[in-house]
Amino acid sequence: MKIIIIGGVAGGATAATRLRRLDEHAEIILLERSGYVSYANCGLPYYIGGIIENKQDLTLNTPESFSTRFGIDVRVHQEAIDIDREHKIVTIRETETDRVYREKYDKLILSPGARPVQPPLPGIDSHNLFTLRTVEDALAIRQFIETRKPKSAIMAGGGFIGLEVAENLRHAGLDVTIVDLADQVMTPFDADMAALIQAQLKKNGIHLKLKSSIAGFEETETGIRVLRKDEASLEADMALLAIGVRPDTKLAEKAGLQLGLKGAIVVDDTMKTSDPSIYAVGDAVVIRNAVTNQEALIALAGPANKEGHIAADNICGLEAHAQGSLGSSVVKIFDMTAASTGLSEKAAAAAGIDFDRVVLSPLSHAGYYPGAQSMFMKVVYERQSLRLLGAQIVGYEGVDKRIDVIATAIKAGLKADALADLDLAYAPPYSSAKDPVNMAGYIIRNVSGGLMKQFHWNEVQDLPAAAFKLDTRTEAEYAAGHIDGFKNIPLDELRERLEEIPAGQPVYVMCQSGLRSYIACRILMQNGYDAYNLSGGYSFYSAVMQERMPASSALPCGMEIK
Amino acid sequence: MKIIIIGGVAGGATAATRLRRLDEHAEIILLERSGYVSYANCGLPYYIGGIIENKQDLTLNTPESFSTRFGIDVRVHQEAIDIDREHKIVTIRETETDRVYREKYDKLILSPGARPVQPPLPGIDSHNLFTLRTVEDALAIRQFIETRKPKSAIMAGGGFIGLEVAENLRHAGLDVTIVDLADQVMTPFDADMAALIQAQLKKNGIHLKLKSSIAGFEETETGIRVLRKDEASLEADMALLAIGVRPDTKLAEKAGLQLGLKGAIVVDDTMKTSDPSIYAVGDAVVIRNAVTNQEALIALAGPANKEGHIAADNICGLEAHAQGSLGSSVVKIFDMTAASTGLSEKAAAAAGIDFDRVVLSPLSHAGYYPGAQSMFMKVVYERQSLRLLGAQIVGYEGVDKRIDVIATAIKAGLKADALADLDLAYAPPYSSAKDPVNMAGYIIRNVSGGLMKQFHWNEVQDLPAAAFKLDTRTEAEYAAGHIDGFKNIPLDELRERLEEIPAGQPVYVMCQSGLRSYIACRILMQNGYDAYNLSGGYSFYSAVMQERMPASSALPCGMEIK
Repeated sequence: MKIIIIGGVAGGATAATRLRRLDEHAEIILLERSGYVSYANCGLPYYIGGIIENKQDLTLNTPESFSTRFGIDVRVHQEAIDIDREHKIVTIRETETDRVYREKYDKLILSPGARPVQPPLPGIDSHNLFTLRTVEDALAIRQFIETRKPKSAIMAGGGFIGLEVAENLRHAGLDVTIVDLADQVMTPFDADMAALIQAQLKKNGIHLKLKSSIAGFEETETGIRVLRKDEASLEADMALLAIGVRPDTKLAEKAGLQLGLKGAIVVDDTMKTSDPSIYAVGDAVVIRNAVTNQEALIALAGPANKEGHIAADNICGLEAHAQGSLGSSVVKIFDMTAASTGLSEKAAAAAGIDFDRVVLSPLSHAGYYPGAQSMFMKVVYERQSLRLLGAQIVGYEGVDKRIDVIATAIKAGLKADALADLDLAYAPPYSSAKDPVNMAGYIIRNVSGGLMKQFHWNEVQDLPAAAFKLDTRTEAEYAAGHIDGFKNIPLDELRERLEEIPAGQPVYVMCQSGLRSYIACRILMQNGYDAYNLSGGYSFYSAVMQERMPASSALPCGMEIK
Repeated sequence: MKIIIIGGVAGGATAATRLRRLDEHAEIILLERSGYVSYANCGLPYYIGGIIENKQDLTLNTPESFSTRFGIDVRVHQEAIDIDREHKIVTIRETETDRVYREKYDKLILSPGARPVQPPLPGIDSHNLFTLRTVEDALAIRQFIETRKPKSAIMAGGGFIGLEVAENLRHAGLDVTIVDLADQVMTPFDADMAALIQAQLKKNGIHLKLKSSIAGFEETETGIRVLRKDEASLEADMALLAIGVRPDTKLAEKAGLQLGLKGAIVVDDTMKTSDPSIYAVGDAVVIRNAVTNQEALIALAGPANKEGHIAADNICGLEAHAQGSLGSSVVKIFDMTAASTGLSEKAAAAAGIDFDRVVLSPLSHAGYYPGAQSMFMKVVYERQSLRLLGAQIVGYEGVDKRIDVIATAIKAGLKADALADLDLAYAPPYSSAKDPVNMAGYIIRNVSGGLMKQFHWNEVQDLPAAAFKLDTRTEAEYAAGHIDGFKNIPLDELRERLEEIPAGQPVYVMCQSGLRSYIACRILMQNGYDAYNLSGGYSFYSAVMQERMPASSALPCGMEIK
């Protein structure tokens, strides 16, 4: 059997090595357009900033070592330019010599990946404007930084790569401005969770220009000018474009393979394309969102690796099926960690799902053990069935742990309230006897069981005028910052001061994190009140509002991010 | 409704607050023998070592604050001494005054916990010999350390508490010796994984005396002498006894409640005892092992908290059922973390389950990103059904994350090989595109699918004499330490040197971690050899053997713990 693989990074490299392990005698040719295979794609931003010091650390596998170990014919600087499906022939151009030649195949695997979107803007080909996809791109950017010593950079795009590169440019000492068309960074996150990320970016000296549309680029003497629609242009010594990626499927299209969503390659759950001799994997294929069962594009290394494995198995006669993806992801933002899995609120809404959600701010580990840090966690679930839909967590220590636990629970089909019953490992340096994930489950059980009714940060400004608004924190906490219109009755005095709360009107209750106000709600409900708890508490409300609302807004009380 | 709760820590305190939230109008009396309620039980070892500096940090809830917030009648220094089940009356002794009085109840919750085992040895009541259960115990030990300034301590018992206290005594500057009857520390772990923990203890200056039986204690002028059966006695300035705990069920026994395993209280899955008006929770009750479905005692804070919640729900008419426990646990040992969930190999064997297991040593995060550390991970599963049974992990960063993911997978009923398909969050600082848990799943899939056969560290010395033993590491690695009888053919030369391996005999293959030798096994199997891969590789073998075998053993080649 002769197998040609086009694309030698995540999906392609995984497929190649799995193929070899399954079939020692197959002829395997791995074609890669760049000069590197099986390199540390996700490490490229960290090479730019020097956190990964040496180029060698990015490219542990050389084409030669990869070839030697696996008996694979690795060919770098080779671009597949045509597929003759009828005769099963790939036409290949050696990019350094322009030599063109042909190879027959029995099976073909396409792993072309995705290219950074480069809109047809004026000046898009400017010097001093970079994109980041390959090792060569990273080398060029780092060389630019080392030789030209830029003092400032504009990062067009506030997604994963944008944020990772922005952090690394800061690390390299540059003044960094992120420009994004959306009104938030990190679109897999809801705007409220993204607000926490935005605050962290600003805290670390990164400027944010959101809802800002780039109209073009102009080279300047010292760098580049970024033109914006209806806004002043920005200048910097360099700019990077990371406004998204697009499946790199020109070859597949030319070959007449069936394409789908956004031009990505359509595959079945064995990763087979519309041609039974051709498989495709990675960022270039249409996959299934494991929660909605809808088609999706997910450009992540984890799914790409799994897909390469699945394609190889099926080619070699083993049974293996793609199961859809949750799009679980995590990103480091300086000392902060932000992670998500499954559906956000907006994704659930877009899918037409009747969802509910809880927000909490548990500590990463037992509060009495040094170093505990609070995180904000949002869990989204289907209201009636309690099907777990997704989660977002922003914090410091232990964020990645909790997102992986919830991703596992979603994958396994656990109900949202079953998070309360998970038997997680506890010792004071690692967690609490009730882990944050357990706490989310308990809150969901209380909400779905009718023990607690909620209201949310974005509803605070529109509460009924006649409603009673109650802040159950201590006097000192209240004095340090509160929401206008909320009256302070500390929880521990509530039972004695119930007569201060008028009957017949709903009561909206808040505290710092949502726990004391929950206890207050229980007291009120059992005394005949219709009480609602502020989800996430004042800490979430104030953190989100400080970022979402301009200064001198409806927040007169000197709110501070916790 | 009037509810009396006996025992005010984990289970009892959780039940009390949940009861109040569910029933604002119930009369709730919480009786606690010690002077503290709802305190940080699991933090006590860290208070001894001064990592938790202040007593206040252990006792965030005072009896008064707890009482105020929840409207609960909290009574400390009160010991329940009798239960008149017929008339539903508890007789209570106020320990500071010896006043005895009675309280009627409608429902009673027992949360007496477990006491440190104190065998009837000579000198068991010696001064300078401590146990650790209550805040008072911790205060006494810390005061002893601060005023008497002991230089040495003997820790009788190498379980969770023993190790946590030993680390903290080291932290306080003492010379510490752990004495244990077993041939390993930490019995929830298999001996091989425990060996890694033992090496860590020794590396941090703790002396280990295993298979050592304590015969008694004698006070000395400066401290205490620990007498041992058939061995020299040991002397130190102080000693601690932490050789296990026993359910504290004297009161339940006196009341005629049904007791079971090791004298613990028998409850149904609503936490109800044999008396329908009496519930019991926490360390004192018989629970179900969620994997074997067998009865078990598990003295952990997580299950105790869940049980308190369940008891309260059922008393208030909500439906809630205990689901058994995996006994998930984690312990910090200096900079190391050791964690387990579900069944160990020996527990699976004891339960009569036909199990298999894989051992791997993945990195905590992408190797090219600074700071990655390897961990040893063992996953145990039922051989035919691939039912996940348990896991043990010993390492540094990210151990707690992976054990929680696997605990969630077990709880949800995922098959062992489905770990490969989990959609976990990846970025270089947090994981690899194939997370360690994914890797375990892939290995299990390969083993169960017949792509790879394994042999284990404890079989190395008994391999058939005629078998070919192959070390596929580099020459440099081989020269730095190898197992006698294993011939070195580096993986990358294997295809060319196959003729050096005789046909007709099994081939036992090893490398450092098990990955290269797996690739070698695949090459060999497809060339007609019957090949076996050393599970966990040389790194696991050498780490275990160095600890398990005395010096000058069958390991002549200067093995070193990785």
